[in-house]
Order: sequence, then structure tokens, then C-alpha cells
Amino acid sequence: MDATLLHDLNAERAARRACAVVTQLDGGEQRLVRETGLEGDALASEIVAALRTGRARLTEDGRSFINAYLPPARILVIGAVHISQALAPIARISGFDVRIVDPRGAFATPERFPDVPVSAAWPEIALREQPLDPYTALVAVTHDPKIDDLPLEMALRTGCFYVGALGSRKTHARRVERLLAAGLPQHRIDTIDAPIGADIGASTPAEIAVAITASVIEAFRKRRMHAERRGETQAA
Amino acid sequence: MDATLLHDLNAERAARRACAVVTQLDGGEQRLVRETGLEGDALASEIVAALRTGRARLTEDGRSFINAYLPPARILVIGAVHISQALAPIARISGFDVRIVDPRGAFATPERFPDVPVSAAWPEIALREQPLDPYTALVAVTHDPKIDDLPLEMALRTGCFYVGALGSRKTHARRVERLLAAGLPQHRIDTIDAPIGADIGASTPAEIAVAITASVIEAFRKRRMHAERRGETQAA
Repeated sequence: MDATLLHDLNAERAARRACAVVTQLDGGEQRLVRETGLEGDALASEIVAALRTGRARLTEDGRSFINAYLPPARILVIGAVHISQALAPIARISGFDVRIVDPRGAFATPERFPDVPVSAAWPEIALREQPLDPYTALVAVTHDPKIDDLPLEMALRTGCFYVGALGSRKTHARRVERLLAAGLPQHRIDTIDAPIGADIGASTPAEIAVAITASVIEAFRKRRMHAERRGETQAA
Repeated sequence: MDATLLHDLNAERAARRACAVVTQLDGGEQRLVRETGLEGDALASEIVAALRTGRARLTEDGRSFINAYLPPARILVIGAVHISQALAPIARISGFDVRIVDPRGAFATPERFPDVPVSAAWPEIALREQPLDPYTALVAVTHDPKIDDLPLEMALRTGCFYVGALGSRKTHARRVERLLAAGLPQHRIDTIDAPIGADIGASTPAEIAVAITASVIEAFRKRRMHAERRGETQAA
């Protein structure tokens, strides 16, 4: 790999953007392809497939090899509650980076969340330090609109691959009204996973954590790629 | 609680059978009700509801209190493979007792499965030592009929609350033929979760482990109680 290509690849990775390196098997020529630069590419559909799974692949014509580089998928959990205490280790085992944010300092302690970064900052500040992106899932479980609403709104505007919120149907209906009032279009609000998590009859906080992790995995593996998303985040 | 009642309750718990203690609030009279002895009980539907969730509840007439005693739900995993290495901790966090059995001694080692009982015995022997029951889930993931088939057959005959098996549709079709040849009726074989786990697009072994745990929780929380199952296990 030549120095320019390596430099560009590192820049994409540092910026948490998905990209692929396509190598021609005959001759060894390599090029970097960004998720946002696939229009008109003869290998577009095969590159999209590689970016979706994160797996390297030989093209169907057998003449090129596609290496996919995905940013590590993250879960940002708003709320240092019981569900989060089970969600953090389960999501980590499943391969996600996990971070917990809850301004209620009594909940957001390293003792309650070993091995996971915990912040007792307000989401507004925490998200400024570490912005959301399309490879981040946002899980809001405090039940408190003062804490949950802003990150939910930002996650929808950013195009996070998963946005889920805890709460009864009634609680969620009021949340939808607030998000509409904040200027978010209905079709974006409809993408919120609420009631949160896969419908498995989860009863305990730990079972709800499994249901959430299952939904996050499903959203990640079946996510729409940039080409399919284009225009939507701006519209939000 | 009087000594006879306590003795009976302990016996049910030791035998891993679900039961409830019903206390009349007026007078304090208590009685033990077994899951298998609900026929004709005036409170049958409310006791079933308590046994399904495992949660204590006041009866609708406000005159009795139902305490539910469920055996700890178990997952027996046949196969000390990568999926099992993620499944064991995730299932434990979710509240299940987990045990791994794989006669291939190189796989079934305590080093690969910290904090979980691992046995390198053949399933035939392992299941004799610790029999299956309706509060056990059977997860077969070796891909090897010599190892998976017998525990699958026993789990279906016992009425395990969940029976799942790894393998492609083709592999499973052959498995179904073998189980039919072993004398199991089609409707029992149809209850096998195959392809195993919730349909979340799981890609890695750890993601498959989440999918399996989600399916086991769903089977447990939506399980049919004894009254609904009656006659079926005998028929199998």
C-alpha cells in the first residue's frame, strides 16, 4: 500500500467513516473508496455489501479484492440505571464499544460500571466531547425528558444507526409531541425503537438489556448504507 | 408458614418443580399449589399468571396473596464452541444457570469457560447426572449429529421450554429426518428453533449468542404452562 493511500485510509478511520480499499488482482493497483463516494462506481453494489458486513471479499468477476474498513460500532447509553449495568457487559461481549452518560452523579459511578467509560456530565456536554455519528447507537433509558430528549433529538439528526428509548406508550406519545415541537419530521421520529428492544417478553432489567442488544445488532446488520440514506439526515 | 408446608415447599424446590403458596389475607391460612395440581382451583388463572412471571401478586378480589416459586431456569449448551464462549456470560448476566457439555476434551476446558461448569462427558452420561426438565433450555451447537442428536431428542421428550439447534436449512432437514426415524412426532420436532436464535442478522459468534439468548428469554417468558402442555410430552 503506498503512502498516500495509507495516509487517506488512516484519516478516514480517525474520522470514523467507513471506507474500502479495492485491489486489482492483476497488477496490484489499489484505490480507496469512501462510503460517500460510491456513485457511478462499477463495483458499488459489491463494495456496499462488503461495508455492510465488514467482511473482505473477492469481487464476482474474480478480478478485484475488497477490504472493508468499518469504524468500531458504539453504543452510547443515556442513563446509568439497572438496565445499563447489564447492557454494558452484554454489548461489550457482542463487540460494541459502550459508554454510559448520566448527569446524576450518584448513578454514574465507576463502581457500578466496571470496565466501561462512565460520565456524569450532562448529555449536551458529553456529546460535544464525543459527537454522535452513523456508527453509534443511542440508547436512552433514564425516563427523564430533561436528560433523554436532547440526545434523542441529536441522534435522529445525526443518523445514528439505532435510536431507542425506554418508556410506556403514553410516555413515548408525549416524547413524540416534544420532538415534533423541536422541529423533527414524523418519519425520523418513527425510526425510534419504542418500546425499546426486541419483543421477547423481557421482564427483568437484564432481560431488557438482551432485548436492546438484539435490536442494536439487527439495526447494525440490516442498516441502510449512505447511498440509501442520502438527503435524509439533512432533511431531519 | 407451618412446618409441613415448608417441608413440601422445599421438596418441590429440590425437585425443580414450579409451585405457589397462596395465603388468605383474612385469617392467614396458607396452602401449597403445584403447577400440576391447578385443575379445578378457583384461583387457577391467577396462579398460572404468577407462575409464568415468577412474580408475587395480590389476587383480583384482594383476598389472597400468591407467592410464586420457580426453579432457576437453566441453559444446557451442547458444544464448547465460540458461540458458547459468548453465550455463557451473556446468559448468566440474563439470570440463567448455564452449563456446557462437549465430549471433545480439547474444547471443553475450564480455561475457555471461566465461571461456568464445563463437562467433557458424552451428553448421554452428562444428562444422566443432571436430567433435563421443563425449566431447562437445550442449545445444541456442535454441528455434529453424534453429539447433538441425542440431547435434542431427550429435550423434546422432556418438554424443555426451549430447544434450539445450529445448522443450515439443509443440515436441519437431515436432522429432522433422523428425529422422525427415532420416533419423534413432527409437531414436536417443529418446536426446534432452527436456524437457531432470533432473526436479527447476527454475523459473529457473539452476535449469534445474543440472538440465542433473546430466543431463550422469549421462550421462557411466553412459555406454555403445565395445564396447556398436558399430554404432549407423553405423546412425544
